[in-house]
Amino acid sequence: MKGGSIELGEVSKNTSRSKGVKRGLSIMDFILRIVAGVATLASAVAMATTDERLPFATAFIQFRAEYDDLPSFVFFVTGNSIVCGYLVLSLVLSIFHIVRSTAVKTRILLIVLDTVMMGVLTAAASAAASIVYIAHYGNTKANWFPICQQYNSFCERISGVFL
Amino acid sequence: MKGGSIELGEVSKNTSRSKGVKRGLSIMDFILRIVAGVATLASAVAMATTDERLPFATAFIQFRAEYDDLPSFVFFVTGNSIVCGYLVLSLVLSIFHIVRSTAVKTRILLIVLDTVMMGVLTAAASAAASIVYIAHYGNTKANWFPICQQYNSFCERISGVFL
Repeated sequence: MKGGSIELGEVSKNTSRSKGVKRGLSIMDFILRIVAGVATLASAVAMATTDERLPFATAFIQFRAEYDDLPSFVFFVTGNSIVCGYLVLSLVLSIFHIVRSTAVKTRILLIVLDTVMMGVLTAAASAAASIVYIAHYGNTKANWFPICQQYNSFCERISGVFL
Repeated sequence: MKGGSIELGEVSKNTSRSKGVKRGLSIMDFILRIVAGVATLASAVAMATTDERLPFATAFIQFRAEYDDLPSFVFFVTGNSIVCGYLVLSLVLSIFHIVRSTAVKTRILLIVLDTVMMGVLTAAASAAASIVYIAHYGNTKANWFPICQQYNSFCERISGVFL
C-alpha cells in the first residue's frame, strides 16, 4: 500500500507539473497573440495612412501618391486588418486555454485557423513587398520606372512597413 | 471472465479500426504529396521555360521577355523548386507512416515542415501574382505600362501558371 501511495504521489506531481508547463505555454500564446495583433494593426495603419502630394502640379493633375493607387497595397491593408481582427477574437480562446489547460479541440481549432491566417498574411506581405521592390528599383526590361525617385517620403513609408 | 473477453475483443476491434482509418489517411497523405509535387514541378517548369522574342529589333536591342527579367518570377521558380524537392523527400516519411501508423513524432515534424513550405509557396505565388497583375493592367498612377500589350504569348504563359 505504501508503494502504491508513493507512486500515486509521483503521478499527481507529474500531472501538476505538466499542467504548469501547459499553463505557461498558454500564457506565452496569449502574449504572442497580443504582440502579433499590435504588429498587424501597426502595419495596416502605417500603410493606410501613407499619402504624399508633390509640391508641384500641372493644370489638370496634382501629383499624389496614396496606398490605394496600387491594388497590392490595398490587399496588404485588408489582409493585415483581417488577421488583426482574428487575433483579437482568438484572445478569448487563448484566455480559455489558460484557465482550462486540458482543452484539446479548441487548441486544434486555433492551430488550423492560425495556419490559415498565416497564409493570408504571407500572401499580403509578399504581394506588397514585390511591388515595393519595383517601386524602388523599377524594371528596365519592362520599362517600369522606379517611382521612388519622385515620391521619396511615400517610398520610405511603404518600405518602413517591412523593417 | 466471459464479459471481460468480450470487452477485450471490442477494444481490439476498435484499435484495428482506428488503425485502418490512420492507414487510409496516411495513403491519402502520400497521394496528395505526389499531386502537390507534380503541381509545383509543373509550375516551376512552366515559368522557367517562358521566353518570347518579338519579331522586330532595333540595331542594339532585341526585344525579348524571359522569366528572369523579373525578380519575383525568379523567386517563384526557386520557391516552387524548393517545395517540390521537399515534397519528394517527404514521400519517404509518408511511406513510413503508411507502414507504421503509430508514429507520432515524425508526423508532427512533417506538419511543422509542411507549414513552413506552405509559407514559402504562398509568398512565391503571391509575389509573382502581383507582378502578373501589373503586367496585365499596368498602373496609370505609377506610369507602369502593361507589358502584356507587347508580349502576348509571354503573358499568357505567366498567367496560365495561376489557372
